[in-house]
Amino acid sequence: MAALIEEDLKHCLEGVTVSRLMGPNEANFAGNVHGGNILKLMEEAGCILATRYYNVAGKKNLPNYQPGMAALVRVERTDFLQPMYIGEVAELHTELTFTSAHSIEVLITVFAEDCIKGQKRLTNRARLWYVSMSSDEKVLPIPPLPNTKKIEQGKIRYEKQKKERAAHRHTRIERVPSILQEELDPQTVGYSQTTLRHLVGVVDTNSAGYVMGGVIMKLMDECAGLVAVKHCKTNVVTASMDATNFHQKVKKGSLVTLTGFITFTSPKSIEIEVVVDAEFLRSGSAQKERAVSSFFTFVSLDSNHRPMPVPQIMPVTEEELERHKAAEERYLERKRQREQESTS
Amino acid sequence: MAALIEEDLKHCLEGVTVSRLMGPNEANFAGNVHGGNILKLMEEAGCILATRYYNVAGKKNLPNYQPGMAALVRVERTDFLQPMYIGEVAELHTELTFTSAHSIEVLITVFAEDCIKGQKRLTNRARLWYVSMSSDEKVLPIPPLPNTKKIEQGKIRYEKQKKERAAHRHTRIERVPSILQEELDPQTVGYSQTTLRHLVGVVDTNSAGYVMGGVIMKLMDECAGLVAVKHCKTNVVTASMDATNFHQKVKKGSLVTLTGFITFTSPKSIEIEVVVDAEFLRSGSAQKERAVSSFFTFVSLDSNHRPMPVPQIMPVTEEELERHKAAEERYLERKRQREQESTS
Amino acid sequence: MAALIEEDLKHCLEGVTVSRLMGPNEANFAGNVHGGNILKLMEEAGCILATRYYNVAGKKNLPNYQPGMAALVRVERTDFLQPMYIGEVAELHTELTFTSAHSIEVLITVFAEDCIKGQKRLTNRARLWYVSMSSDEKVLPIPPLPNTKKIEQGKIRYEKQKKERAAHRHTRIERVPSILQEELDPQTVGYSQTTLRHLVGVVDTNSAGYVMGGVIMKLMDECAGLVAVKHCKTNVVTASMDATNFHQKVKKGSLVTLTGFITFTSPKSIEIEVVVDAEFLRSGSAQKERAVSSFFTFVSLDSNHRPMPVPQIMPVTEEELERHKAAEERYLERKRQREQESTS
Repeated sequence: MAALIEEDLKHCLEGVTVSRLMGPNEANFAGNVHGGNILKLMEEAGCILATRYYNVAGKKNLPNYQPGMAALVRVERTDFLQPMYIGEVAELHTELTFTSAHSIEVLITVFAEDCIKGQKRLTNRARLWYVSMSSDEKVLPIPPLPNTKKIEQGKIRYEKQKKERAAHRHTRIERVPSILQEELDPQTVGYSQTTLRHLVGVVDTNSAGYVMGGVIMKLMDECAGLVAVKHCKTNVVTASMDATNFHQKVKKGSLVTLTGFITFTSPKSIEIEVVVDAEFLRSGSAQKERAVSSFFTFVSLDSNHRPMPVPQIMPVTEEELERHKAAEERYLERKRQREQESTS
Repeated sequence: MAALIEEDLKHCLEGVTVSRLMGPNEANFAGNVHGGNILKLMEEAGCILATRYYNVAGKKNLPNYQPGMAALVRVERTDFLQPMYIGEVAELHTELTFTSAHSIEVLITVFAEDCIKGQKRLTNRARLWYVSMSSDEKVLPIPPLPNTKKIEQGKIRYEKQKKERAAHRHTRIERVPSILQEELDPQTVGYSQTTLRHLVGVVDTNSAGYVMGGVIMKLMDECAGLVAVKHCKTNVVTASMDATNFHQKVKKGSLVTLTGFITFTSPKSIEIEVVVDAEFLRSGSAQKERAVSSFFTFVSLDSNHRPMPVPQIMPVTEEELERHKAAEERYLERKRQREQESTS
Repeated sequence: MAALIEEDLKHCLEGVTVSRLMGPNEANFAGNVHGGNILKLMEEAGCILATRYYNVAGKKNLPNYQPGMAALVRVERTDFLQPMYIGEVAELHTELTFTSAHSIEVLITVFAEDCIKGQKRLTNRARLWYVSMSSDEKVLPIPPLPNTKKIEQGKIRYEKQKKERAAHRHTRIERVPSILQEELDPQTVGYSQTTLRHLVGVVDTNSAGYVMGGVIMKLMDECAGLVAVKHCKTNVVTASMDATNFHQKVKKGSLVTLTGFITFTSPKSIEIEVVVDAEFLRSGSAQKERAVSSFFTFVSLDSNHRPMPVPQIMPVTEEELERHKAAEERYLERKRQREQESTS
């Protein structure tokens, strides 16, 4: 019996590959699969591996084990390196890379497979952090990962994200910028600012009954994409999503309000901030809670799917100018990181 | 605390804007978004506002407040003034316009936004009536709307719809016309008569567990659309839906049967009646209950999206002739109303 | 009252017609509706009729009647005789053809209707076997079918499928073939072998809370379709699915893993075996259970939608050679049966 569980555990540590055929409803008019659909798939794949690991290892090692379901708390920054098209297969490889006392890190690598040409391209890679939740919504302890190689780098990543999550929890913006006037110049922030609203229903929840992080990320990418289309009026695609923290679980029956607005433009990219507020409609209070926020980078493609120059944004208000400055720093930092990664 | 609730209430009365990007699965082969998808979105938006108002105002003002969820009981006639296309954003504005002792009236205005051209067009507008239901399916009292301006017109609309609903409850058709022969002339009613069936599942229900009115309206429009395609053999679009009453709540696990048939043709429009019966499969009785019925007007479009003449229907049986006469009166009445509205 | 129930029963025995408009998300890039969507619709239609019959006849005739919901246990072999395209209406006719002590046989005939041309084509026909499950997952007794004509043929079909199901239960493959090397010849089995994974969620379950057989068949067809595309690199369509047995109910919250691989090629067809394993993630065991397996036949179409020659498979390992031999026998048996059917 013990041997069987060892076998199970080995199976968990090997990771899991998730594949999905991309249909027309998952892509834009130019055939590009929305980045949000890939983020949603990544979150599902991570959830599968983290749920399986917690339950298999937990049943064996935890004295007061109870069944748990993984819930997303953070996604590290991810670059969309290559486009994915309708009719291709998204293939996601998952790997358990670290556990802390209450969290699980999963590394996910995504490939796009053109089955007709027989080619596979790396599209993106991200690290996702999960906690395990009991059915009465307690955060459960995580059994330590037996495979201890590379544990030092894992600890460094863990401490870094912990610090960033704590910082983000306190500095998040409380106010969504309002649009000032009716007739706006197409290069202003207000012109392309977009609000989406979604009543979170049964289809958006997992079998444990709460809204999956991937569903929210898909909506965020859709909102950012509309901002980018309004500003560029071309075929736009997601180039990256910055590290994103999920502080609040969103309940079924909530109205989520997503607002996206441009913070910065480089010659060939746009940074868009998307903030998500949730409001449980039957609470008897119309108070919203900030559920998530993140920064998306979009690029504009010409008819040959090559990046083209984007119209430059014109920040006007003091707030817009401040955001623009902070965004420029993030842009330069990302650029630095990409160069570091490509030389290391 | 009281001030906070005042703030909440103010927020409710301001209404809510719901936006949604229209994908390929929501349109026909010519790229026109099905009217049924717009009706479904309208119902969702109205449900959000009515649910929020009931709970926020109810918690403050009702002595025995309990949480409630809005359920659709009636939609007033709505004209689809402009088409909406794939890739456009549907933007719905909602406004609380009247409350009676047990119902809430919401006015919804829909715009189609072409994000690339930066243009917004009014597509339609309708008044929806909701009741608030407790989790044990009681109809809850509605706190009166504080904003009392224009209350007189609201009362007139309320009395008018109340009378129409009561009349409809008793005169609804109990029998679906059957098709008489196998080989039918393409201009007969029987040739294009269409039956759709749908097993109402988890995806069709809201977070309170019952089937939303919008889901039924979407199926009704799909059924009417098939009738129109069979008759015209062209690109057909919804021009209007007449006032529609929901007398019966449809339970999850029910089989809904929709039957659509042409009642009348004018030179450039078709009137189609759609009747919906629901049958709860595990009741041990195959008895159906009439859940809803309504009249849709469709137009046929040429390749430049302009209305074109439609083949005239040939009513044959006595029943068909009677229906045709009643439909002609509705047609003339609608025409009169449109002319009145455009001159007032 | 008794007469009313007789009326209900008559209504059940007449069968039910289910229609559905086929959208772009249900078809491949060439506009062909995936066979898996048709299989899913067939299962839904069968479930409606079997659930209605059990409850209506059961309430009248069973001394300890309790409400039940139909669950699929077997689909007989079905040939896809004609393609179905986006924009067409799938029309499914159902007929109750036999009952045993614990099972119901439903015959389903599918037509594709081109509403613009006004033409209807027979696409396929299959016999589906259901049991009726109580809410506490007991298999319920089935009241005998009053209409006893043709009962002898029904008994023969029943005994035949019973024997086959029992045999299949014990001989099912326990091991999925693994792919041996990285760089594979495009004609090998390993080159086109495909694994799909799906976390079974709320949308995949019926109103009684378990995963419908049709959802699994749709995923199986999708998996087989990807294998066929990888091998042929053309527009491929489902030509048939062999008799398929559902021994295991799949629970919500399970990870299903589907693996498809080619077993045989004739000059113009490919046989693909798809095996499905289910793993309930919160069980604390990573053990999988074989839920279903079946054989699909695919054909490759040229630009005029006519079958074209397929690249021949090269079985290499002993296992592949054994499977190839067994598949060839199935291929010849199917051919024999088709010839028999067309002459009888």
